[in-house]
Amino acid sequence: MQRVGVAILGLGTIGSAVAQALAVQHDLIAERTGLQLVLRAVFERSAERATRADLDPDIIATDLATVLTEDGLDVVVEVLGREQPAADYMVRCLDAGFHVVTANKEALSKHFTEIVTAATNAERAIMFEASVGGGVPLLVSYRQILATNRVTRLRGIVNGTTNYILSQMASAGTSYTDALAEAQRLGYAEPDPTGDVEGFDAAYKLAILASMLSGRHVHPDEIQRTGISGVTSQDIDGARHRGGVIKLIARAELDDGGALALSVAPEFVPNDELLAHVHANYNAIEVVGDRVGPVVLSGQGAGPLPTASVILSDIVEAVRTGVAANPAFPHG
Amino acid sequence: MQRVGVAILGLGTIGSAVAQALAVQHDLIAERTGLQLVLRAVFERSAERATRADLDPDIIATDLATVLTEDGLDVVVEVLGREQPAADYMVRCLDAGFHVVTANKEALSKHFTEIVTAATNAERAIMFEASVGGGVPLLVSYRQILATNRVTRLRGIVNGTTNYILSQMASAGTSYTDALAEAQRLGYAEPDPTGDVEGFDAAYKLAILASMLSGRHVHPDEIQRTGISGVTSQDIDGARHRGGVIKLIARAELDDGGALALSVAPEFVPNDELLAHVHANYNAIEVVGDRVGPVVLSGQGAGPLPTASVILSDIVEAVRTGVAANPAFPHG
Repeated sequence: MQRVGVAILGLGTIGSAVAQALAVQHDLIAERTGLQLVLRAVFERSAERATRADLDPDIIATDLATVLTEDGLDVVVEVLGREQPAADYMVRCLDAGFHVVTANKEALSKHFTEIVTAATNAERAIMFEASVGGGVPLLVSYRQILATNRVTRLRGIVNGTTNYILSQMASAGTSYTDALAEAQRLGYAEPDPTGDVEGFDAAYKLAILASMLSGRHVHPDEIQRTGISGVTSQDIDGARHRGGVIKLIARAELDDGGALALSVAPEFVPNDELLAHVHANYNAIEVVGDRVGPVVLSGQGAGPLPTASVILSDIVEAVRTGVAANPAFPHG
Repeated sequence: MQRVGVAILGLGTIGSAVAQALAVQHDLIAERTGLQLVLRAVFERSAERATRADLDPDIIATDLATVLTEDGLDVVVEVLGREQPAADYMVRCLDAGFHVVTANKEALSKHFTEIVTAATNAERAIMFEASVGGGVPLLVSYRQILATNRVTRLRGIVNGTTNYILSQMASAGTSYTDALAEAQRLGYAEPDPTGDVEGFDAAYKLAILASMLSGRHVHPDEIQRTGISGVTSQDIDGARHRGGVIKLIARAELDDGGALALSVAPEFVPNDELLAHVHANYNAIEVVGDRVGPVVLSGQGAGPLPTASVILSDIVEAVRTGVAANPAFPHG
């Protein structure tokens, strides 16, 4: 049986869950895939986090160079979060000849060209299923559709926090403020909710999806972005009377001339569309291919457990498929 | 650029669409994947079909042996339909060292063990995305979920014809007989609609999904099967009053002891579930993983154009991933 050496960069919530999943799911994955995933190295500077993760102290390093010289390493999982040093580290890992799996939508969306180019030049895989839709394997289907369809329209509910808030406002009739407080109480929203409610998180994810679609780097700054903090109970009631709901929709549309219209904004979605029925903290994307027609993929996906699970799938996919798994980027 | 030699077995509606898609999509696929797909051989005994497909007559063979000796062949697309000789031909192609891509749910569901075992022994891929959900890439996500989740529950709307009929009965208030006639008029239902309306087609698809889930061969005969011909307007009205709809649901549930409950039957689906909103001739499957939670994949998928498109994706995937793409079967 083939052994696959794995390193994790960052022992935050996701990183710790990946370390744990590697141990817990080792046998299931070996049975299903023939691959034995072994944790070889961890990059983490916080001694407290390292202790809490309850790992062999010998595998913990406080600098990237030590990780990169580890014997038997094949795949690096980047779950540091934020733009830097995560983006630089991913490029360094790829340059050093390792496949990279990331959940980091901010770093990837802002440095898509550098990272994908580094992967392709090094003939290594860059896998990022966990960066969009959390634990729901959306991108694997999306990539398959892109390979054989011209995709001209994409709509997504890609932020679980805002979808929870809007769903609460619609079903329980609560105000935005109360629904946000409830989301914070349940741990769906952070103490500073700006990244979610103002649409930054959704814009990072849309930038990744749109980069894959268009074959050029779509930077999150190119996306016209409106959050949900201005959505009122009156708006929600109005939508209900018109036979629909308000959703925070991430949208990319490619016109005949190749120009891309990009937005993240609250939109009216009529009840006869599947996206209107994606409730609570669920995510969904709808992709329209010229051959396959509209395809919707939906799931909950948030949280460390599903995210770690999809990261493990990406490790398997990176080893199986290698550089061929990467987005064809830039197109042409 | 890597050249990939393709053969097609059968020039029916799907086979002709695959031949055409290979020509039309050649450049897009080359750009996106780096693979040049070239049609090398076609098996078709009907001279009329062969002529209608407007292909180079030199590549058309009337026996399988001629196809198998073709130079530069890598992948065989089996779209003959029906159980035999399709199942035998797939095994022969795999034994001869070619990847096989099929859309044939009947042959695959009845001979899953033989076909998957032949593929694994020959270290070749058996790809069958087109056998479930038509052109919608459901299986690629499903396989990914199965690789890292224990899946205990699966529900699907996997037959577009019956979903169209039930949707018409609900939205237009028509009787079963009128809705069936309308489906036949639109080409959604065949002149003899038995395979669809009595649930045989759904049972073939469920058998494939359940075989992948359980790691043993689930034969369609094991599935408790009730069609929709007994569904009345009164049933539909009753469901509406209870806050839901009637759908033909293909269901697999794995209990703690490993026993599998399998059924295809009309079921009440409440409106707060996404499956209740999968209308017209759309398909959907809902998979519940212990880590990822419930995931729904939906799309239209029927028809030669989307089906041919997903067959082309499968060809690409077969070449990229090879035997590693196959279901881990039997488990253990």
